[in-house]
Amino acid sequence: MTDRPALLLDLDGTLVDSVYQHALAWHKALELGGIKLSVWRIHRRIGMSGGLLADSLARETGRELSEEDAAKLKEAHARLFATQLGDVRPLPGALDLVRHLTKTGVAWAVATSGALASAQPLLKLIHLPPGVPVITRDDVAHAKPNPDLWLAAAARLGVPPEDAIAVGDSVWDLLAARRARALGVGLLSGGYGQEELERAGAYRVYEDPADLLLHIDELGIRAG
Amino acid sequence: MTDRPALLLDLDGTLVDSVYQHALAWHKALELGGIKLSVWRIHRRIGMSGGLLADSLARETGRELSEEDAAKLKEAHARLFATQLGDVRPLPGALDLVRHLTKTGVAWAVATSGALASAQPLLKLIHLPPGVPVITRDDVAHAKPNPDLWLAAAARLGVPPEDAIAVGDSVWDLLAARRARALGVGLLSGGYGQEELERAGAYRVYEDPADLLLHIDELGIRAG
Repeated sequence: MTDRPALLLDLDGTLVDSVYQHALAWHKALELGGIKLSVWRIHRRIGMSGGLLADSLARETGRELSEEDAAKLKEAHARLFATQLGDVRPLPGALDLVRHLTKTGVAWAVATSGALASAQPLLKLIHLPPGVPVITRDDVAHAKPNPDLWLAAAARLGVPPEDAIAVGDSVWDLLAARRARALGVGLLSGGYGQEELERAGAYRVYEDPADLLLHIDELGIRAG
Repeated sequence: MTDRPALLLDLDGTLVDSVYQHALAWHKALELGGIKLSVWRIHRRIGMSGGLLADSLARETGRELSEEDAAKLKEAHARLFATQLGDVRPLPGALDLVRHLTKTGVAWAVATSGALASAQPLLKLIHLPPGVPVITRDDVAHAKPNPDLWLAAAARLGVPPEDAIAVGDSVWDLLAARRARALGVGLLSGGYGQEELERAGAYRVYEDPADLLLHIDELGIRAG
């Protein structure tokens, strides 16, 4: 164990305020594909791999999705989300957190279930400095709740996952953290309730990046 | 106490799937008014009286709102929400629940923190039969979490509030139910977590109107 844990950060709902736009984009995409689902059920799946999300939501309505159907759905979602991109903002404290981690030399990375193409405009919003590793859906076999994304992010930093703290706003981030044997930390900024995140294994739950930064010493994050 | 409790139902998030559209409409309206707030913080205020919501969100950002500012905000929200109306659907089971209550002669009413003008298109979506009382923001001095809306709905049915079951998706519905001395029941369909609703005093929490209808005997609701 090192004395300086690495910080692995989710993107949507953790650094940028995009979860509600994602939920409504999926809602519309699913409806276009003939699948009617309440928005709250979709909201609770955001952060999962897109394929798993489409499968699980289709199963809930008793439909089977072909690979082609799933690809169409993901494409429609990406297209509809892109039309909302102008309304997406960095979460409070996201830019301060990025600056703080960079300034203090903490090893940190971003790991998102989204594809690189959809992550790129969001990473611009938080002024990601060059050199910070970004692991996306395109880099791994399976997105969250599989542990692959957190594991790949830790590996890229050269840190064992047991020495990493994985921060996310969804239960899928926390399940993936458990499976990666990283310490999971939750944020309320994706719209889950505190108890949902705690029950999914969050060691601590903060409101948003600003609140995390205010309490970063509680996580034993030390300057490099 | 009567042997047949009355059922008082909230509208947004309880009968129609409109909470996420409301949250994003408020987000945009607040931003137009110079108030930057994360969507999840707005989401957790939906169901409150619009004036209280605007005040509480402004206070969170350290701004004071004049009456004129608040009126402008509410107007912008109503305008922006109206553009999303085409995407709002009845929640699963809402129409079945309406039919069941009407067929079995249960005393029931709708009580919403929204104004009558914004409630009307939503009431159409659930095919509200004539004769079912609808209490809106326009009928009372204070919307939820004040008890006025639930109290007025019970009074309209000629039932003491203690003999009424008040069903809503937000903690504001449940706080208002406590203050009205009605039994509060929560629904997950507005996007709160189950524990949040339980901690706010929900006697039971169901997923949505379909799940409530499936378990309606648990509430002691009897045919008239």
